[in-house]
Amino acid sequence: MSVESQNLSKPLVITQGDPAGIGSEIIVKAFRDAPDVTRGCFVVGDVATMRRAVQCVSEEGDLPIPVMRIEDAAEALRMPPRCIPVLQLPDMPAALVPFGQITREGGDAAAHCVIWAARAALREEVAALVTAPLHKEALSLAGVSFPGHTELLQAESAAFTGVGIADMPVRMMLANDALRTVLVSIHMSLRDAIDAVTFENVLQTLRITHNALSKTLGRPPRMGVAGLNPHAGEGGLFGHEELEIIAPAVAAAQVEGIFATGPFAPDTVFMRARSSVDKHGEFDVVIAMYHDQGLIPVKYLGVDSGVNVTLGLPLVRTSPDHGTAFDIAGSGIADAASLIESIQVAKRLANWNE
Amino acid sequence: MSVESQNLSKPLVITQGDPAGIGSEIIVKAFRDAPDVTRGCFVVGDVATMRRAVQCVSEEGDLPIPVMRIEDAAEALRMPPRCIPVLQLPDMPAALVPFGQITREGGDAAAHCVIWAARAALREEVAALVTAPLHKEALSLAGVSFPGHTELLQAESAAFTGVGIADMPVRMMLANDALRTVLVSIHMSLRDAIDAVTFENVLQTLRITHNALSKTLGRPPRMGVAGLNPHAGEGGLFGHEELEIIAPAVAAAQVEGIFATGPFAPDTVFMRARSSVDKHGEFDVVIAMYHDQGLIPVKYLGVDSGVNVTLGLPLVRTSPDHGTAFDIAGSGIADAASLIESIQVAKRLANWNE
Repeated sequence: MSVESQNLSKPLVITQGDPAGIGSEIIVKAFRDAPDVTRGCFVVGDVATMRRAVQCVSEEGDLPIPVMRIEDAAEALRMPPRCIPVLQLPDMPAALVPFGQITREGGDAAAHCVIWAARAALREEVAALVTAPLHKEALSLAGVSFPGHTELLQAESAAFTGVGIADMPVRMMLANDALRTVLVSIHMSLRDAIDAVTFENVLQTLRITHNALSKTLGRPPRMGVAGLNPHAGEGGLFGHEELEIIAPAVAAAQVEGIFATGPFAPDTVFMRARSSVDKHGEFDVVIAMYHDQGLIPVKYLGVDSGVNVTLGLPLVRTSPDHGTAFDIAGSGIADAASLIESIQVAKRLANWNE
Repeated sequence: MSVESQNLSKPLVITQGDPAGIGSEIIVKAFRDAPDVTRGCFVVGDVATMRRAVQCVSEEGDLPIPVMRIEDAAEALRMPPRCIPVLQLPDMPAALVPFGQITREGGDAAAHCVIWAARAALREEVAALVTAPLHKEALSLAGVSFPGHTELLQAESAAFTGVGIADMPVRMMLANDALRTVLVSIHMSLRDAIDAVTFENVLQTLRITHNALSKTLGRPPRMGVAGLNPHAGEGGLFGHEELEIIAPAVAAAQVEGIFATGPFAPDTVFMRARSSVDKHGEFDVVIAMYHDQGLIPVKYLGVDSGVNVTLGLPLVRTSPDHGTAFDIAGSGIADAASLIESIQVAKRLANWNE
């Protein structure tokens, strides 16, 4: 059965995120402002938390946005527009978690939603999952031994597939209208990130990106590989990683039919890849050697429409490119643009059809 | 005597760059297309090379652009617009250097122009120097023991001032309409750049930037200091340089009355500093911990109008944010926008008045 037919009538799940953050508010705004985009979506979380969010974003005279409790994911497909279907998880905190506070309850609630959504996606009951932000410290307070979404999803996927976590390598892709970038490593010191630039890690990044984007684009992606050092090492003058590690990994990928080129000078490869209204970028994606190399350019023009995609898992997962924003949670001012874009990207990645 | 009155009637010098590169062509275009900007400027170099460049950029039917040999810098102030004054250096190669080739003669010519211009600026015969690109390999072939402009200018300034090179610290600033960034280190491997993030180097960068930009802006600059590690180390979780080195250096600078804040997460500090037509950036300048951290964002939107400024020297020096472009040299297609912007920035830095 093809991906298209599999996802023809499966809903997409949006996790509520930490209830103390802006997650529930931006979900309400997405359903209110982008009914076409949210068609077929439902929230996994807590009905009372979602109703509180409706109050936060409503202004006097607004028509109330209905939050409807559903018992089964498939009910989401039969909802009228601007209606928010919520699948209530039984193990939610009894009382509402206050906005803007790091709590065990908030972390616990967020983790339960993600685990439920991951399993639903792995069982193919949902077409994709879109995760609202959680708070790493709250997660840790709740006794969850994974630092964030990605590691949680990786562990669930590995357990479901019956392999070890080491055999379920993932990569983070950040994307907006102008640029896509996939990172060789993410949350580690810059010194450790340099050590993580190995032949295996670079080649694996190229393979994962090739496989994931070939599905999205319908053709092999043109990948521009960044160097690690200034001027990509200037022929060995400023570092040897390009000559000894990155170039051989690119060559090995090319032998496998992967359309990768580089390593290129990091300070211009993102400019070359950038698409604008006037021009198509030279590459479909840039392979970045470390976190900030890729995230500085992808965030430079603003984070409103940035989407985070986890590549390498046997499920489709996207998320907005921002955090819980505890400082403004509950005020109703949070911008839903990145979440809306995340839902659109998830639908494209899942070849979603109503 | 104030800077203003000093520079009231002093010309600006533009060095010709490597004669095999695009330098002479973009200089001709700058004089042709931006007569207001180039008013008061002259070229130090070779009359025959500049006349060849006029031919390269001229199309049939164009009025010829006159190249006028001058004997003294001050003559530049009396030139009509769109006329190119050239101070002929006696030690130029006898024959024209062919385009696009790395030669000893090209490197030698470029170095002579820079040394002449640096000494003229140090003797206060010119208000500022703007350097067209040279080729590092050609420079090396010519037996020049400095890798590029910056080191050459540093050595000349140290010798003129009677101090050692170590007592003439410089920093590179890259600037365009949207962003300014000053780099703690430049041409070294990323591994060495991490080692160069020391208390002394960061504090020195803050002092140099404060002094230079206070003059330009007429007030202390608001400086945003980037971290070294992802999320600025996330409280020590991904590296300790922020806690142990960068934050103490920022605190020490604040005690001196320098308006610096940070360290901030590198992936958003440049976005926060970026100015656009709609908004002023949060900072006047971002202090970047290594080459690509600063250069990726400053080049992301294109290199056409990027300007490189050397801070810390007892002279004003700017240059375009691109190289010799040997691949297109002689074709007349090179873009002069970055050179024109460099001249404008040099005039502002020198408080230049006709």
